[in-house]
Amino acid sequence: MPAFNANTKDMQFVLHEVLKASEQNIPGYDEMDADFTGAVLEEAGKIASEVLHPLNEVGDREGCQLENGVVRTPTGFKEAFDQMRHGGWTALDCDPAYGGQGLPYLMHTAVGEIMSASNMAFNMYPGLTHGAYSAIHAHGSDAQKQTFLPKMVTCEWTGTMNLTEPHCGTDLGLMRTRAEPQDDGSYKITGQKIFISAGDHDMADNIIHLVLAKISGAPEGIKGVSLFIVPKVLVNDDGSLGARNDLSVGKIEEKMGIHGNSTCVMNYDGATGYLLGEAHKGMRAMFTMMNEARIGVGLQGYAQSEVAYQNARAYALDRLQGRDVTGTKHPELAADPLIVHPDIRRNLMDQKSFVEGARAFAFWGANLIDRAHRNSDAEADGLISLMTPVIKGFLTDKGYEMTINAQQVYGGHGYIEEWGMSQFARDARIAMIYEGANGVQALDLVGRKLAQDGGKHVMGFFEMVKTFCKENESDEMAAFVEPLKKASKDLQAAGMYFMQAGMKNPNNALAGSYDFMHMMGHVCLGLMWARMARAAQDALANGAEDRDFYDAKLATARYYMARQLPATSMHLSRIETGADTLMALDAAHF
Amino acid sequence: MPAFNANTKDMQFVLHEVLKASEQNIPGYDEMDADFTGAVLEEAGKIASEVLHPLNEVGDREGCQLENGVVRTPTGFKEAFDQMRHGGWTALDCDPAYGGQGLPYLMHTAVGEIMSASNMAFNMYPGLTHGAYSAIHAHGSDAQKQTFLPKMVTCEWTGTMNLTEPHCGTDLGLMRTRAEPQDDGSYKITGQKIFISAGDHDMADNIIHLVLAKISGAPEGIKGVSLFIVPKVLVNDDGSLGARNDLSVGKIEEKMGIHGNSTCVMNYDGATGYLLGEAHKGMRAMFTMMNEARIGVGLQGYAQSEVAYQNARAYALDRLQGRDVTGTKHPELAADPLIVHPDIRRNLMDQKSFVEGARAFAFWGANLIDRAHRNSDAEADGLISLMTPVIKGFLTDKGYEMTINAQQVYGGHGYIEEWGMSQFARDARIAMIYEGANGVQALDLVGRKLAQDGGKHVMGFFEMVKTFCKENESDEMAAFVEPLKKASKDLQAAGMYFMQAGMKNPNNALAGSYDFMHMMGHVCLGLMWARMARAAQDALANGAEDRDFYDAKLATARYYMARQLPATSMHLSRIETGADTLMALDAAHF
Repeated sequence: MPAFNANTKDMQFVLHEVLKASEQNIPGYDEMDADFTGAVLEEAGKIASEVLHPLNEVGDREGCQLENGVVRTPTGFKEAFDQMRHGGWTALDCDPAYGGQGLPYLMHTAVGEIMSASNMAFNMYPGLTHGAYSAIHAHGSDAQKQTFLPKMVTCEWTGTMNLTEPHCGTDLGLMRTRAEPQDDGSYKITGQKIFISAGDHDMADNIIHLVLAKISGAPEGIKGVSLFIVPKVLVNDDGSLGARNDLSVGKIEEKMGIHGNSTCVMNYDGATGYLLGEAHKGMRAMFTMMNEARIGVGLQGYAQSEVAYQNARAYALDRLQGRDVTGTKHPELAADPLIVHPDIRRNLMDQKSFVEGARAFAFWGANLIDRAHRNSDAEADGLISLMTPVIKGFLTDKGYEMTINAQQVYGGHGYIEEWGMSQFARDARIAMIYEGANGVQALDLVGRKLAQDGGKHVMGFFEMVKTFCKENESDEMAAFVEPLKKASKDLQAAGMYFMQAGMKNPNNALAGSYDFMHMMGHVCLGLMWARMARAAQDALANGAEDRDFYDAKLATARYYMARQLPATSMHLSRIETGADTLMALDAAHF
Repeated sequence: MPAFNANTKDMQFVLHEVLKASEQNIPGYDEMDADFTGAVLEEAGKIASEVLHPLNEVGDREGCQLENGVVRTPTGFKEAFDQMRHGGWTALDCDPAYGGQGLPYLMHTAVGEIMSASNMAFNMYPGLTHGAYSAIHAHGSDAQKQTFLPKMVTCEWTGTMNLTEPHCGTDLGLMRTRAEPQDDGSYKITGQKIFISAGDHDMADNIIHLVLAKISGAPEGIKGVSLFIVPKVLVNDDGSLGARNDLSVGKIEEKMGIHGNSTCVMNYDGATGYLLGEAHKGMRAMFTMMNEARIGVGLQGYAQSEVAYQNARAYALDRLQGRDVTGTKHPELAADPLIVHPDIRRNLMDQKSFVEGARAFAFWGANLIDRAHRNSDAEADGLISLMTPVIKGFLTDKGYEMTINAQQVYGGHGYIEEWGMSQFARDARIAMIYEGANGVQALDLVGRKLAQDGGKHVMGFFEMVKTFCKENESDEMAAFVEPLKKASKDLQAAGMYFMQAGMKNPNNALAGSYDFMHMMGHVCLGLMWARMARAAQDALANGAEDRDFYDAKLATARYYMARQLPATSMHLSRIETGADTLMALDAAHF
């Protein structure tokens, strides 16, 4: 029932008019002209609309089944996966040395939004593979890279990440999975891992599990954790597949959503594993994967609200109910469409202004990653490190909220599965939880990232906002620059409060961490909207053809400034009340 | 896996120390002393914990099945329903003339919270029956009352409400269901109704459908709608059951949640119906039912967050993860429990301060209904009319948000069905939608209720807040009174803005309706927290024994004032931007 059409026009606007990608001096960016990216995005949109999105509901309804130890994916998934692989969609930004296309991460991100919006559960199979690919690429030996990467680039083999155990998720120092060194340099891995997305399935010849475990005799806690490559099927020296490894699927979890992805309990019973990177430095290697995954999850967050918004908009234009209070709009119809009602518009504008702002934010983040990786730009590296928890936490919280808003437009039909809005909501919910629950993102942001390198990165961010505002001190930009300045000032005040009150008691900072994450998200989206407004004004001044598009952009920017950005002052006032009211209650009196 | 225990202690606090129920001069209230209400609540809590809550997961998993035209409820539902009926729980506040116990609506509400929190889907069967009972009680002829009410009081027969049709929900004027007058004074009802909760099931001998339909030749639109009693099984003159009526279940909807309740498509194929109340005045009669239902739905909203909170709290106390940043709390354990972390506490305190505030708000609302009905108190009647959309809209929005927060405490486990948190969230979601989606509540509040009787009721509310603040101008109350004053001032400013800017264009008011509903909800909860703080201080001053309880109450009140109430200024700033940014976009450019 629901439909999806990639918003390639808006993506092109962000890529070329906001980020001006092809003008940036980053290896690979010179190819990224509007014709090229437009063609790629159109093609991605086609497979997403025609192949992946129709399977979204199928995946939800059928789910994955564990039969005789083997996971069966929903009807049509394997064919679609083959089509995606053969189309090269899994190899976009991978290293040409291993069969990748070498495109920028920015291109991967734009395509990722499309894939994720059309079918989130499905896109997790290549998504996790990409993360495992990146970890092996960054930390593997040459032999490991030669053995695994070419197959993972094409998704002939897929990947997973194994962190969580039944008794520990965030606190991985408590981990019990063990790795016994063997004479041949390999390890025997024994333990149970849970919540393993894409843990098993029938779409690839092999599955490369990246597993965190403790080598016998390793230091206590998180500093004794190592990362291992544990293939489902062992790989012979000539690259052919050998014996099954000693690992199995314990069960598939029954979840609230993303039913099309197999979330497995994985049992490792002396499975053969190969150390990836250095012993006891597993978290470092895993973080290569996790940082990428966190940005990918932020993208999932707004991607679900994009597809939900598209459908809510269509419903609001189509469904006749009530009359425009200022005067009937369509006397020829039995009633006016929902979209005449101010509160329906408020709801839709919240969604639209979020999704478009989030897209710009995510693309900007991807651009920073390219600058960091391709230009070894330390400033960009610091900035994306700071932004990662915001992209993950804010975009998934708000993405879920907006998906719920979209569902609300449907009234009772929103609650009925056949209309599809419930699935968007149920699927979107996980993004707030996995890859570090959003409270952990807030902790990472305030407890670690703010003070990183002496606070250089957050100061750099404030400086960037200030510079933008200074460069845009015109009458026509005042409607965007002034609210942005105000919001940025609130954010700085919160940072200042953390420095002062957090010195006395760190809880004063941590008590405000969640509010700070949201505040910073708003300031980032505020900056994005101001930059988009600037780009729209430039286009109009330069006599752009599609004036409606740019006018709508400006109107949406004004909406965000008026209706969303004022949230920063509420967050600030909460933050400035400190930790006392949170810590007052004895645990027993909750 | 999840558990539920009625928070009778807090209910007793609200009933006797905040509302001082038994001191109120309302017929029936003199019996409501603490011993009596305590005994009733304890018994209700017992059946809820031991019988209804264990069936909550069963209902979710099994759902309702339509087999050969008959709906089968989940395993154990019928036995539990019989137990509930025989215990008299469906008759609490019903008229003794028809077999009811004649207790105040306040008692019905307190018990309703318990039942709804333990098993929302199950409690909808008696809940809808109660609504239909009230509509017949208020608008039926003596003969209708004699025929139907005694059986409905005991839930031997249950009830439903039939409003929505496939093409119309909010805008019932578009209704197509027809009623043809018959010679014997009855009508033949023909049409299709959808989303009929408890539309059919196997737990009662008869189902009394209240159906909105248009009598042939009736005026166009909403003014031509009449209400009919349409029994599933016709009732003979002697009260015995006769022939099956010409109505059937088209299908059961597949929903996001409340699977234990059968949501039916109902087909009326010339079914025999009896006019309830006056012809063409069906909406008036239906509103008796709907106003009650809206308050009941508000109660569902916070009841789901109550049970979700109870489980999140237990998990936070039990789950070991990480260490207190200010120093290890439990060196003897592998890690500290989650509750040491400030952001977990922020989350739990948001929930706790909402649930307890919402309870006081809902009980106060029930108290107003008793004053209106039992004392014919016009002021109370006006006030509850004003508050109904706030109770419905704010408590279900926030109730859902807090249920999601509770789910978040569980991390990945929150997303797995076996832990039960997903069900709470999926069930709670409907409360924002049915009985008038929350946007419609906001419209009702701002478009109708604010100006009702010349704005008398909202002015009365402001006066009440002012009086409370004046009477509590002490140093010890300042921490509660000052924030309440500030929030109330914000609310008044918003009302003033609506009057001024709404005069120019009604969209300026409607564009802020949703924010206003939330603002007003916060001010109401702020008032409740201030009243609870007052009661707690009085108890402490009077040497109450359980000092921990009252200290916790004061700490929670401080939290609400510091962390939740500041939302009003954000809502005000949004409201004051008016309708322009919402209405700027042409419908085609969304």
